[in-house]
Amino acid sequence: MASFKKQIPEFKKSINHHLNMILYESDQSSKELSEAMEYSVMNGGKRIRPMMMLASAMAIDVETEHIIPFATAIELLHSFSLIHDDLPCMDDDSIRRGQPTTHIKFGEATATLAADSLQSLAFESMAKAKFPKSKSAQLDLISMIAKSIGSAGMAGGQSLDLDSENKKLDPSSVENIYMLKTGKLLKAAILAPTYFRKLNNKEVLALISFSESIGVAFQIQDDLIEAEGDEDMIGKSVVSDKSKNKAAYPILFGINESKNRVKELYESACDSLKVFGESSNSLREMAEIIIHRKL
Amino acid sequence: MASFKKQIPEFKKSINHHLNMILYESDQSSKELSEAMEYSVMNGGKRIRPMMMLASAMAIDVETEHIIPFATAIELLHSFSLIHDDLPCMDDDSIRRGQPTTHIKFGEATATLAADSLQSLAFESMAKAKFPKSKSAQLDLISMIAKSIGSAGMAGGQSLDLDSENKKLDPSSVENIYMLKTGKLLKAAILAPTYFRKLNNKEVLALISFSESIGVAFQIQDDLIEAEGDEDMIGKSVVSDKSKNKAAYPILFGINESKNRVKELYESACDSLKVFGESSNSLREMAEIIIHRKL
Repeated sequence: MASFKKQIPEFKKSINHHLNMILYESDQSSKELSEAMEYSVMNGGKRIRPMMMLASAMAIDVETEHIIPFATAIELLHSFSLIHDDLPCMDDDSIRRGQPTTHIKFGEATATLAADSLQSLAFESMAKAKFPKSKSAQLDLISMIAKSIGSAGMAGGQSLDLDSENKKLDPSSVENIYMLKTGKLLKAAILAPTYFRKLNNKEVLALISFSESIGVAFQIQDDLIEAEGDEDMIGKSVVSDKSKNKAAYPILFGINESKNRVKELYESACDSLKVFGESSNSLREMAEIIIHRKL
Repeated sequence: MASFKKQIPEFKKSINHHLNMILYESDQSSKELSEAMEYSVMNGGKRIRPMMMLASAMAIDVETEHIIPFATAIELLHSFSLIHDDLPCMDDDSIRRGQPTTHIKFGEATATLAADSLQSLAFESMAKAKFPKSKSAQLDLISMIAKSIGSAGMAGGQSLDLDSENKKLDPSSVENIYMLKTGKLLKAAILAPTYFRKLNNKEVLALISFSESIGVAFQIQDDLIEAEGDEDMIGKSVVSDKSKNKAAYPILFGINESKNRVKELYESACDSLKVFGESSNSLREMAEIIIHRKL
């Protein structure tokens, strides 16, 4: 079997094609809003969550073709969250991926609405998607993804994150925030393929355990990039005004401790995959990409 | 048959009970966020959209019991839109229904996240709802509601509205904005019951026509309340700084012309209902409430 890594460029092309198509077909009434949505989504994103969903599909032998609409929707949800994250009242970031953030380019009001519209577009497209299994499973999948971004997931984590400013938290509290704000959407991406094929409990638990470890590792690696990186390379203000006061692993526990923890979480993530044997190499490769990425 | 109006208090109680239950069960991780969500939703809202959905269900003989989860979700979506509407970058309103708006009470960041979470909670609850017809119809309904709040609906209208500031628009352009920003969600509420029972084309078109007229009438009546009302009575700043520059029917075309237009739209709305005969009295009564409301 060809390595997953080698297939990433092709998958990325496919996701970008679908994102473009969904945005184009979304029957927009305001040119300004439509431009802001496109600007935010088609900005050279790495598409890590869709790739993770595809890697998971390959690991459990679900046809990637069925996964594409949901992988695309997950990226719309990620884009929505980035727009609101960058707002002055949140992280107050003016640069993302080397470009002005959406509110800098289009104003705060349009940015707020563009994000809102990307969220609803994701649900619209998931409800419309062709689904090879029962419609009941499709509804369950939509509900699971909705939950992952709400108050029990991403938004809950963002809220705890805001509340963490200038607080001295212990590692497990920080990891809890990371598991919510970053981990839940990644977990939803990894679990999505299980709605297409019945797995046994052991296999589901293995994917859950993998996703929880890799979600936290992902966010600590993100912090390390911020802490060590230079602005030109990572394409955003290295430490934005507001985010610098928030709980960040390297600031609270040091660079070395953070690197060790990423390594530990990576190993534990890979360990969880044993039950699948070689078929889960796709997920192992994605885990490797996540802990070695520099931007 | 008892008048719909007489049943409103009971229906409202039921919607409020379901809203409370959904918020309570939503498994929140951040106390602050959960409080902001509850504050925004349980603030004495008139529940006009849920009532409209229930009135429509009665008109076409769909059991209101099946409708409640979707009527509840529509109110969550309405609440989400109000929070973002009130933000400083949008209408900059500090008072709503006599109380501080969500961002005044909880800060802009928490308000932004509370609204985002109410949107996803609405989709989560719709996907989870028990549905008496095919799951396919449930997915279609979710997709229709998602579309009604996105770039082709509510958010699209809000964006055009922002763009209308200080512009001299003609009546049909203003009505187009109103149809989107206010009308689309109301239309979704009125059409939702058609996903529970097959109607003929004539009946569907009648409901569409009713909802389009009453949606615009609703927004012009809203403008009239702002233009004529006093702050104590309507419980919000009468003319907020930002909204005063936006296209508003009474400001552009005068109070009398606005009142005439509301009456005209009301009559046309009721006219559309002829095909249903007396069974649609529930919708007629709702239309009357909408054009006579003072707050």
